[in-house]
Amino acid sequence: MVRIGIDIRGGDHAPSAVLEGIKKVANQLGQKTQLHLYGLEQDFADLSEDFVFHPCTDAIAMDEHPVRAMQQKPNSTLLRGMQDLASAKIDSFASAGHSGALMVAAMQMLGLYDGLSRPAVVSIFPKLNGGRTVVLDVGINVDAKDEQFLEFARLGKAYAQSVLSLNSPKVALLNTGSEASKGNLQYQRVYKLLQEQEPSFVGNAEARDLFSLEADVLVCDGFTGNMLLKQTESFFSLSRELGLKNEFLELLNYESYGASPILGVKGKVLLAHGASGPEAIKNMILSAESFASANFAEQISTSTTI
Amino acid sequence: MVRIGIDIRGGDHAPSAVLEGIKKVANQLGQKTQLHLYGLEQDFADLSEDFVFHPCTDAIAMDEHPVRAMQQKPNSTLLRGMQDLASAKIDSFASAGHSGALMVAAMQMLGLYDGLSRPAVVSIFPKLNGGRTVVLDVGINVDAKDEQFLEFARLGKAYAQSVLSLNSPKVALLNTGSEASKGNLQYQRVYKLLQEQEPSFVGNAEARDLFSLEADVLVCDGFTGNMLLKQTESFFSLSRELGLKNEFLELLNYESYGASPILGVKGKVLLAHGASGPEAIKNMILSAESFASANFAEQISTSTTI
Repeated sequence: MVRIGIDIRGGDHAPSAVLEGIKKVANQLGQKTQLHLYGLEQDFADLSEDFVFHPCTDAIAMDEHPVRAMQQKPNSTLLRGMQDLASAKIDSFASAGHSGALMVAAMQMLGLYDGLSRPAVVSIFPKLNGGRTVVLDVGINVDAKDEQFLEFARLGKAYAQSVLSLNSPKVALLNTGSEASKGNLQYQRVYKLLQEQEPSFVGNAEARDLFSLEADVLVCDGFTGNMLLKQTESFFSLSRELGLKNEFLELLNYESYGASPILGVKGKVLLAHGASGPEAIKNMILSAESFASANFAEQISTSTTI
Repeated sequence: MVRIGIDIRGGDHAPSAVLEGIKKVANQLGQKTQLHLYGLEQDFADLSEDFVFHPCTDAIAMDEHPVRAMQQKPNSTLLRGMQDLASAKIDSFASAGHSGALMVAAMQMLGLYDGLSRPAVVSIFPKLNGGRTVVLDVGINVDAKDEQFLEFARLGKAYAQSVLSLNSPKVALLNTGSEASKGNLQYQRVYKLLQEQEPSFVGNAEARDLFSLEADVLVCDGFTGNMLLKQTESFFSLSRELGLKNEFLELLNYESYGASPILGVKGKVLLAHGASGPEAIKNMILSAESFASANFAEQISTSTTI
C-alpha cells in the first residue's frame, strides 16, 4: 500500500484546481495507491469514496507568516498532512501551497537526516537522450555554505538511486566552464572540496550543456539553481509565444514536470508550483507516488556520511 | 570617418575565418567606415586595397599567459591594435582572440574612466517586442562587490543611450523574484543600494521574463551573468537539435549576435566568441562599427559619478 497525502487547500487555484487534478489522475495511479485528502469538509462533497478524507478546519493562505501559521493553525490542511507524514500514517505529502510554511513545518515536524544542515529543493531536468538530471539546490539555500554542496551531492545521489533507479549516479558542479579554475571564489573552493570528498564527482558542468549532461546529479547554490529554473521557464514560455511545438519542450513546462521533492527531511515532502492548474496537480500526485514508493531513506542512510 | 581595428589573428579559426568574415561584411559597412587590419604580412595577400594594413610579426595564442604575452609580444596583432586604439589612430578594436589578454591589455593601455573599479562585459539580449536589453556583467566580475553593481548600471545606461539610442534607460537587478527580499544576501543588499543611489532603478527582474523585460539595462554579477549567457546558448543549441526554426531564436545565436563590448576602459574594445566563424566575425565588425560611431565617452562622463 502506498499512501499519498494531498493538500486540497494548497495553491493559488485551490481547492478547485486540486480537486480537478485529483479526478484527472485517479485512474492513472497504481492499484495499491491510496490518496489521503486534507481539505475542508465541503471540498469532499463531490468525490469518490475511494479516497481517504481528512476533514480539517483551516487553511494556510499564500501570504501568511510561516512560523505564525504553524502556531495558530494546527488544524490546517498543510499541518495535518505533515503531522500524518511525521507519524507514518501516510508515505508522502504534496502541496502547491505556501512554500515557506511547508518548509518550516517539514523541518520542525520531520527533522533532518544525520549530517545535514538544511533541506534542499530538487528539480528534475530532461536530457535529450531520454535521461534525467537531478539538480539541487534550486530554491532555499541561496547563501549555501561550501560544505552544503557535499550534502546536495549526497541527497541528489540518493534521489537518483532510489527514484530514478540509477546505479552509480555521477555528480557535477554547475559552473561557467569545465576547468577547475572556473567560476567565482566559492565555486573554485567547492570544486576542490567535491574532488577531495565526493567519490562520484566528475567535474564542472556548463549550463550550455544542460540538456546533454554526462552527470546525473548537478549541484549548485539555491540562488544559481533558482535562476536556472526560472530561465528554463522563460524558454518554455518563449517557445509557446513563438508557436514552437515539440515534445521535448513540453518537458520544460512546470505543468508536466510535477513537483519538487524537498530532500533532507525525514519524510517525503513535495512542493508544486503555486500557480499549478489541474494538469500540474495531476503530475504532482504522480511524482508523489513514485517518491513514496522509493527507498530513499535507505539510500541516504547508507551513503557516506560527510 | 569611422576607423575600426580588427585582429586578424584572434580566435580558434583565425586567420581564415576572420578574413572570410571581412570579405562578407565589406559591402555592408558605411561609406565613411575604414577597416584597419592587424595581421601577419601573409594575411593581406588576397585582400582589397580599400583596407588599411598593419603588418605585425606576432600573434597571441589562445592558451598563453596574458601578462607574459603582453611583455613578450609587443608587436602582436592584439597589442598593436590596442596601441593604435590608445593613441586614437582607430575608433574601436575588435578581436575573437584571447579574452584574458584583451582585458589585461585594455586595462593597462587604455585605463578606466573615473569612478570605476573594473571593466564589465556586456551582452545584448533581444526582446520579443523588438527591443534589446543590455546585460552586464556577463563575464569577468565573478566576485563583484556590491558597489560594482552601481558601476554596471552606469555603464549599461551609457551604452543604452549612446549605442541603442534609448533616452531614459531603465535599470533592473536580475534576481529570483520581484520582491526586495528576494535573492541571496548580496542581492538583497544590492537592491537597497540601487534603490538609494540609482535614479533609473525600477526593481528586480526575473530570468523568467528575460525576453519581455520592462527594463533596458539588467545588472548582475559576472558569474550569474555568464550562467545566463551559457544557458541561452544551451537553448539555442537545443532548438537547433530539435529542428525548430524561428527568426527570434536566431537572435540567440552568438554568431548573429556580434561581439561583447568591454565597458569601462577608455576606448571601444569588443570581444567576440573564440569559436567565431565568418558569420560571427561579420557581425563582430558590424558591432564594432556601431559602437565606434556612438558617443559613449560623452554619456559616461556626464553620468552621475558614484
